[in-house]
Amino acid sequence: MEETKKGLLIVVTGPAGSGKGTVLANIVNEGDCAYSVSATTRKPRPGEIDGVNYHFMSVEEFKEHIANNDFLEHAEYVGNHYGTLLSEINGKREKGIHVILELEVQGAANVKRLYPDAVLIWILPPDYATLEGRLRGRATETEEVIQKRMQTAIKELGSFDMFDYIVLNEDGKSYEASRALRAIITAEQHKVSRTDSFVKKFMSTKID
Amino acid sequence: MEETKKGLLIVVTGPAGSGKGTVLANIVNEGDCAYSVSATTRKPRPGEIDGVNYHFMSVEEFKEHIANNDFLEHAEYVGNHYGTLLSEINGKREKGIHVILELEVQGAANVKRLYPDAVLIWILPPDYATLEGRLRGRATETEEVIQKRMQTAIKELGSFDMFDYIVLNEDGKSYEASRALRAIITAEQHKVSRTDSFVKKFMSTKID
Repeated sequence: MEETKKGLLIVVTGPAGSGKGTVLANIVNEGDCAYSVSATTRKPRPGEIDGVNYHFMSVEEFKEHIANNDFLEHAEYVGNHYGTLLSEINGKREKGIHVILELEVQGAANVKRLYPDAVLIWILPPDYATLEGRLRGRATETEEVIQKRMQTAIKELGSFDMFDYIVLNEDGKSYEASRALRAIITAEQHKVSRTDSFVKKFMSTKID
Repeated sequence: MEETKKGLLIVVTGPAGSGKGTVLANIVNEGDCAYSVSATTRKPRPGEIDGVNYHFMSVEEFKEHIANNDFLEHAEYVGNHYGTLLSEINGKREKGIHVILELEVQGAANVKRLYPDAVLIWILPPDYATLEGRLRGRATETEEVIQKRMQTAIKELGSFDMFDYIVLNEDGKSYEASRALRAIITAEQHKVSRTDSFVKKFMSTKID
C-alpha cells in the first residue's frame, strides 16, 4: 500500500503540559518513525551513544557545518551548540523513515517554509483548565514560570491555522492521541499531492 | 478525540475492477459510516425495506422533490427515477455519521462543487495489468465492453488531481485498503480546517 517510499517530515508542536512526549513515544517505538538526532558540541554523558542520542562533534566541525549551510536550525545553549542537520532529516527520509521534529511554533513555521511538504501537527490538552492543571502539577516551577507558560500557550493558539492537524491529548488517553497520529501518517502517505508520478507509473505498467 | 461531531462526506470513485465494493463493505460494517440511501420510484422487491435499501416514493413525490431542488443528483434508468436527497446526506452527517457516496468521476466533481469539505478518494488496482485482468475476469462481458471500460478508466486517470487521496487495492489485500480508508477518515477529523471554532471553544473553558 505504499504510494511513496520517501518518509514524511512530521513537525509536532505543543505547549508544555500537552503531553506530546508520551504521545510521540508510542509512535517512535513502532519502528518506521524516528526522532531527528541533533548535532551538539556538548561532551557525551556516560551511556550516551554517538548517532543515537546526539551526533557529537567538535566546535570546529560544528562551525564548518554552519558555514556550509548544513543546518535546518542551530542554537547555543549554556555554552554548547545544538543543531538539526539537513542531512539527518533527508538521509532518514530517503530510507523511508518518517522523521519527527519536536519544535516550538516559530520553529514549525520555519520548517514549513523550507519543506512545504512537512506535516504540522499540534498536540493540545483537551481544554484550558487541563492545560493549567498540568502546568501547575509540575511542582518544581514558580508561579511566575507557570504564568509565563500559560501566556505563551495562549499566544500560540492564535497561530493554529498554520498547522495541518490538531490532536487533543486527554488525561489517561494518550494511546488515543497516538492512534490519531498514526492515522494521520497513513492518510498523508495516500495524499494525491504526494503521488505526482503515480499516473505515469500506473500507465507505464501497460503492455501494448 | 473528536474535534468535530459532524460526519464527513466521503466520495469514493474507482473504475470497474478496482474492488471498491469490498473495500467499502469493511468500513460500512464498523457502524459510524453509512452509504447514502437513494430515493427511487421503482417498486420495492421482496425483502427490500423502505429507508434501508431505498427511500421508495411515487413519481409525484419524486417530481415534487425535483421541483424543490431537494436532490444532489437524480437520473432516470429503465423507466424508473433514482436520486440522492440532500436531506439524506445532511441528516446523517448531523448525527455524526460519515456518509459514503460511490460515484463516477463526473459525479465526484459535482459533489466537490456543492460540498467543498467533501473528501474525494480514488480506489485503484495496483497497476494497469491488474485492472485489465480484473475486467477480463468478469467472464459475462464482451471484448467490446471490456475495451470500453479500459478506455474510460485510462481517460479518468487524467483527472486524478481532483481527488484528495489515492488508495491502491491489491489482490487479496482489500483489508489493507480498508485500513487506509479508515485512517483517512480519522485524519480528516483532526484537520485544522475542520476545527474553525476550536480555539474559541478552548479559550471558553478558561475560568477568569
